[in-house]
Amino acid sequence: MSITTALSWRYATKKMNGTKIPIQKLEIILNAIALAPSSFGLQPYSIFVIEDKALLEKIKAVANNQEQITECSALLVFAAWDKLTQNQIDKYIERIETVRQVTPESLHQLKTYIETQLKNSDADNASWNAKQAYIALGVALVAAAEEAVDSTPMEGFDKAALDKVLELKEKGLKSAVILPLGYRDGEHDYLAKLKKVRREKEKLFIRL
Amino acid sequence: MSITTALSWRYATKKMNGTKIPIQKLEIILNAIALAPSSFGLQPYSIFVIEDKALLEKIKAVANNQEQITECSALLVFAAWDKLTQNQIDKYIERIETVRQVTPESLHQLKTYIETQLKNSDADNASWNAKQAYIALGVALVAAAEEAVDSTPMEGFDKAALDKVLELKEKGLKSAVILPLGYRDGEHDYLAKLKKVRREKEKLFIRL
Repeated sequence: MSITTALSWRYATKKMNGTKIPIQKLEIILNAIALAPSSFGLQPYSIFVIEDKALLEKIKAVANNQEQITECSALLVFAAWDKLTQNQIDKYIERIETVRQVTPESLHQLKTYIETQLKNSDADNASWNAKQAYIALGVALVAAAEEAVDSTPMEGFDKAALDKVLELKEKGLKSAVILPLGYRDGEHDYLAKLKKVRREKEKLFIRL
Repeated sequence: MSITTALSWRYATKKMNGTKIPIQKLEIILNAIALAPSSFGLQPYSIFVIEDKALLEKIKAVANNQEQITECSALLVFAAWDKLTQNQIDKYIERIETVRQVTPESLHQLKTYIETQLKNSDADNASWNAKQAYIALGVALVAAAEEAVDSTPMEGFDKAALDKVLELKEKGLKSAVILPLGYRDGEHDYLAKLKKVRREKEKLFIRL
């Protein structure tokens, strides 16, 4: 599906039918997420891929009982680093050394740039990390739509409660946004037949 | 290009060659942005599409003189609403009424949900709006890559200074992130030949 067709076809699915996504399609979506860019390339987040039914029930309970969470094939939880640490930066620089087979000295300037972020408060860096996760979210939902997989970005959940369910604090993470992946129950989803509402392009874009 | 191929091909282009993007390709990218989802569907941002050379020079000056800003074909500036207001919500509800030909009464519940956001501070809502813009950014860079158009998401600019250049405060906006669109100068861009660095998938994804 072209991106225009795919994004016109997708919508925030309110009711899913429980059908599993083929493994290959899930892997295409996860691959796209893994390739998503982020500031400095840090990828300051983890993505939980949850298919365990009992766990999904627990998550639904802290997400206003939204049914897609248990009707989906897999739930993606985008969890951003709750701060930025020297250790995370060091590990990233080591990763570049390994992949590109370059010396630490050649990465000194990049490292220094990234380290300037350590002057920000933990809260500011957490927010910055979450924004990077939203880029990955945007990439994920395009990937899903192009594979004719439905998805519903959701912010309507109790973040502190979800962080407890997934023990995110212990992992240095904070939940940012979640994305059920699955297939629409078009017959029973009131939203499936409604027109997509978007701002007029003349208002959304300012051309200079 | 498939999304996997496209995202593997793209990289944060450091040097562009000044070639213009065909209008049709630019429109595909803008269409994708216009179709990007956002919380409640509010699309709480404007996107500046800047091709004016003199203006691009001014923006470069407040963006660490990064050369892609004047070497690109068009610069997208994602500017998020600097707060959330009752008027913005009212306008959005009216837009739904128009597009779907429904009554205000049928949208009362949705309106009430959205209005709960008004209890948050302006700063919190500005940050929430910016996150929505990052979804659109993610969508934009996939659209660009699938059209073999290079793009470089950039946060390395003086936000207050860019807001002044574009008179964003007067428009109730704050710059969030910018994206030059154009074509790589593969011969002179040191990054064009380097391997893409991404976290190991076993570390990025946690499967439950």
